[in-house]
Amino acid sequence: MERQAAQGVAERPDPYELPDCSNVTVGIIGGTGQQGRGLAGRWGAAGLKVVIGSRDGARAAQAAAQLPAGVIGVSNDECASMCDVAVVAVPWSAHEATLVELGSALRGRVVVDCVNPLGFDKSGAFALTVPEGSAAQQAAALLPESRVTAAFHHVSSVRLLDPQVTSIDADVMVLGDDRGATDLVQALAGVIPGMRGIYAGRLRNAGQVEALTANLISVNRRYRVHSSVRLTLE
Amino acid sequence: MERQAAQGVAERPDPYELPDCSNVTVGIIGGTGQQGRGLAGRWGAAGLKVVIGSRDGARAAQAAAQLPAGVIGVSNDECASMCDVAVVAVPWSAHEATLVELGSALRGRVVVDCVNPLGFDKSGAFALTVPEGSAAQQAAALLPESRVTAAFHHVSSVRLLDPQVTSIDADVMVLGDDRGATDLVQALAGVIPGMRGIYAGRLRNAGQVEALTANLISVNRRYRVHSSVRLTLE
Repeated sequence: MERQAAQGVAERPDPYELPDCSNVTVGIIGGTGQQGRGLAGRWGAAGLKVVIGSRDGARAAQAAAQLPAGVIGVSNDECASMCDVAVVAVPWSAHEATLVELGSALRGRVVVDCVNPLGFDKSGAFALTVPEGSAAQQAAALLPESRVTAAFHHVSSVRLLDPQVTSIDADVMVLGDDRGATDLVQALAGVIPGMRGIYAGRLRNAGQVEALTANLISVNRRYRVHSSVRLTLE
Repeated sequence: MERQAAQGVAERPDPYELPDCSNVTVGIIGGTGQQGRGLAGRWGAAGLKVVIGSRDGARAAQAAAQLPAGVIGVSNDECASMCDVAVVAVPWSAHEATLVELGSALRGRVVVDCVNPLGFDKSGAFALTVPEGSAAQQAAALLPESRVTAAFHHVSSVRLLDPQVTSIDADVMVLGDDRGATDLVQALAGVIPGMRGIYAGRLRNAGQVEALTANLISVNRRYRVHSSVRLTLE
């Protein structure tokens, strides 16, 4: 990445300097789904403490047993209480109810919403209208005492789960209004080999990032790939 | 790019096989703006016939004189009548009125909408709500007899206009419901060195592609770059 020093303006924090996240415990709410297991496996392999949650704690424990040593599985509520950073990886249909239920357990924590509100018909995927503007903004409205961010929308779970894919060729757009929280989530993206976390705006601009997943599904169909996004920073 | 042959399914057209566009005349409606001049200059340099249009034909002629030999400047109406493919590069505020005015001149032509409906405030850029869903869908509604596509939303005009930038490191997401039209627009993207046109869905999924420009503006601010997008096709 090209770095340009600020010239003649007040010193701003270096956008490439991110916090150490090696001691962070990542919880994955809805962690038995493809995306959840994919991310849990990669973070576990990178040496982070990872807890996956499910409505059914026993099912989460079962899924965790298939993941790198150290990943454990518990109920969503325990997962929310144990973690420093909670990744919300539930289906859109369960998004609101799950967050209402976990509200108090998630208080004060960094929350990473990676839910894509999409509909499907015979022509493919399309973006659903969300009254709050996006899944992430819905999360922020439901969790006023959490530090809500949005990220990991475009990472292919097929590639995350494929043991032959040793490097994930993707940039993760990280959104949020809390710089400390977005910096930490960028750092978490960066511990997965090949992946890079890039700040990509405030939460009010999360809707289009979530909806872009519909476009990637069109790309996947046309080119028979598992596409993702890179940003060129030139 | 990795190519996978269709296995056990009916033969589908090769998504990487695009039509020859060397004889296409490209018209740029609103061609005196930064984006319009930037694209015109690149296509002119690649040997295409390029016509830039402006409400004021004399202003367009003046702008064309600064561009590679062969690029000419005329009124928007003449531009629409002369071209095979019309790129709509007007400001969002002029989008509807311009297309209403040019409707009959654009009949039967391929139209490429590259307009981003954005608002700006002290926190940066944000997506505006468009009743039709996107600028491109508004164009399709106003131009029922044109072949409307959407593309070139994320290409930095600063980089297009910089003569030291010999290769544009960006993928152009091309959207539309008419395969012949999207294939041709992908080919037009591909004649600009470094650039690649990728089919990225139907017009109903154009809104988020337009709105993503707000995110790139946030990226540009944070990293002091002129960012763009690449898709990984793996």
